[in-house]
Amino acid sequence: MADFNDKNRNIDEFDELLRAEQDQSYGGSVSRPDVSSAVVKRLPRYFRYLRVLIREGKTRVSSAELSRMMNLTASQIRQDLNCFGGFGQQGYGYNVNYLYSKICEILGVSFGFRAAVVGAGNLGMALVKSPMFEKRGVDVVAMFDVLPEVIGKKVAGINVYSMDELESKLNEYGVHIVILTLPKEHAKEVVERLHGTKVSGIWNFTGTDLDDGQSKLIIENVHIGDSLMALCYEIAKELD
Amino acid sequence: MADFNDKNRNIDEFDELLRAEQDQSYGGSVSRPDVSSAVVKRLPRYFRYLRVLIREGKTRVSSAELSRMMNLTASQIRQDLNCFGGFGQQGYGYNVNYLYSKICEILGVSFGFRAAVVGAGNLGMALVKSPMFEKRGVDVVAMFDVLPEVIGKKVAGINVYSMDELESKLNEYGVHIVILTLPKEHAKEVVERLHGTKVSGIWNFTGTDLDDGQSKLIIENVHIGDSLMALCYEIAKELD
Repeated sequence: MADFNDKNRNIDEFDELLRAEQDQSYGGSVSRPDVSSAVVKRLPRYFRYLRVLIREGKTRVSSAELSRMMNLTASQIRQDLNCFGGFGQQGYGYNVNYLYSKICEILGVSFGFRAAVVGAGNLGMALVKSPMFEKRGVDVVAMFDVLPEVIGKKVAGINVYSMDELESKLNEYGVHIVILTLPKEHAKEVVERLHGTKVSGIWNFTGTDLDDGQSKLIIENVHIGDSLMALCYEIAKELD
Repeated sequence: MADFNDKNRNIDEFDELLRAEQDQSYGGSVSRPDVSSAVVKRLPRYFRYLRVLIREGKTRVSSAELSRMMNLTASQIRQDLNCFGGFGQQGYGYNVNYLYSKICEILGVSFGFRAAVVGAGNLGMALVKSPMFEKRGVDVVAMFDVLPEVIGKKVAGINVYSMDELESKLNEYGVHIVILTLPKEHAKEVVERLHGTKVSGIWNFTGTDLDDGQSKLIIENVHIGDSLMALCYEIAKELD
């Protein structure tokens, strides 16, 4: 079984449309207002549900429909989307493709981000083989590891480089995002090396919070275990 | 490089204490009140930060210290912990070990949950090799796949069985949680098969929301990509 889904299987036609849109809007004039982090947190969900609607061939959607799909109130949805200039029309609802492309712009999908994975173990491999990045307009351009047996290999078409080449390759590829899937003991040392590069952000899977408060890097810590705990809590409550 | 951390490397001595505690509290009288989902969402973070304090040898902590560590207000912390009966004492703060063991009870860490992974690809492998489960009192007892080349093998000491044996092995092992790391096309079909077993919950990595609204199974959908989007948003804002 492949993890998630095979990279090339699930990318839909509308990603091509999206890419055409990218060419036009790259570096363009997106209004990206400072909204509450609660709204920002919900945007990736809008992104996912709009993809489902597009896949189903829907061209418009009402806030009531979105509300049922997403388990949010219709007024919450109107409020969220209004923060970004309100793309809806009374009595018509939202144009699905337009809303999708706007949310893509706001989320930076249209930016053309490049990413590199540090740590070519099982998790790193699972990530680069998933269609997750392509769907979100992120191009994974390189992997790094310390093990001689993987250095020089290709994984899902992506070169695995030695950690010795970290800074030079990151700059050569113009990498914006570094994905940390290496053991947590080495995480801080890698973060320090990134300060000498043009990397803007870190997607951190090491399980240790890396935000040192003084770094200019934007850090997104992933704690998969938190969601396991939430599940355990619910089951324990049920079984009590 | 290993993913996350090697399974046996980072399990600390206090897990033994925890296990001793489990024996006493298994099936015991935990007060697991119905609190808001916002509080429940924060509990796994308390769990992680308390482990850090224990690792550092701290025996007590004030709400002010926890507040700095966790980037929450001190009054928020007092409120959260009060929901569960308030384990703090004025002028002393919280007893770290006691608070940790209480939060473990509430979260079901002391329950002794057993889990099985469906999909022995890279992600499944990365998960079972991580110390995440042991830290949280979850015992991964089996894996399942359809590929002949992995069936019958052991991964991190865990047997990989054929999908033909799914129901029988899940019941034999008394599995509470099924972890879905298989391609999303097959997710629903597996969920249907689980209705004939004693499984209580699903930890779903397939990227498709599985909550059918009528299922008795508790489903936790993991959307790793949402956190990638949040990072992209922040970077795009910065680069604008």
